[in-house]
Amino acid sequence: MKISIVKAKSEQDIIDAYALIKELAIYENAPDAVTNPVSLFIEHGLGENPIYKLWLAKHENKTIGMALCFTAYSTWKGKMLYLDDLVVTEAYRRKGIGKLLLNALTLHAKNEAYKLIKWQVLDWNLPAISFYEKFDVTIDKEWYDCKLYEKDYDLFLSK
Amino acid sequence: MKISIVKAKSEQDIIDAYALIKELAIYENAPDAVTNPVSLFIEHGLGENPIYKLWLAKHENKTIGMALCFTAYSTWKGKMLYLDDLVVTEAYRRKGIGKLLLNALTLHAKNEAYKLIKWQVLDWNLPAISFYEKFDVTIDKEWYDCKLYEKDYDLFLSK
Repeated sequence: MKISIVKAKSEQDIIDAYALIKELAIYENAPDAVTNPVSLFIEHGLGENPIYKLWLAKHENKTIGMALCFTAYSTWKGKMLYLDDLVVTEAYRRKGIGKLLLNALTLHAKNEAYKLIKWQVLDWNLPAISFYEKFDVTIDKEWYDCKLYEKDYDLFLSK
Repeated sequence: MKISIVKAKSEQDIIDAYALIKELAIYENAPDAVTNPVSLFIEHGLGENPIYKLWLAKHENKTIGMALCFTAYSTWKGKMLYLDDLVVTEAYRRKGIGKLLLNALTLHAKNEAYKLIKWQVLDWNLPAISFYEKFDVTIDKEWYDCKLYEKDYDLFLSK
């Protein structure tokens, strides 16, 4: 099976990725959690200063996987590539396509002098955790995520 | 005590922030963990497309606190402001300066249409966790951090 990994370039590429994100949210019983509209998703990914970078896995011109990342920063380490989402459509899982996408990011990180690549995994996702451990990924279990949502900004400011 | 919160603008501002980062690393017994050189830290924070945004807390023209963040992206939520580091120098802690810095970020997030602000806290840092909970911050405990460091890129690619 010939899989190619390419950088997203067109509006259609981004629409394809959006469909994969939606598919995964439905699979996870959380379709309403995707509140980012496709119009903004397109705007943020194209143009002169895109907020994110997107790689796609394609098979016979069909988009069957994606990895989305952005440039993050660590005061201690410097420039960091942050992977927000990695999706492979259901029929194509367990064929090594996730690894091909991670390889593309790793090559990019190497060429662009990123000091590390960071992402997150759910604590119950044992297959993913053991996959990562097999590939020399460091797993840090001592951090909690803190999130202040838009709806709570005013309340936060008033306290 | 009159504290002003300002956006970092000059090389000296960034050098001041770097000193705070080093101070904290020494306090945490990890001075060698700061491998990001000050020269790169300056380069990444200034110019037309800085990687990070930096706010400083000043008292009588002395920099006594800092908050560093960058634009991140969530496929599900959209544009996100990610706070990497919040530091207040020791003599000025417990005076509400951290909250002033967080307020500046929150105002920025509100004005620039960020959907959320995200950061992390160590699981043993109970005072910080209860501080955040008091201010309507959502704490997610179910994620692990995964990190692939530069020294392991080639090994990862070879497997």
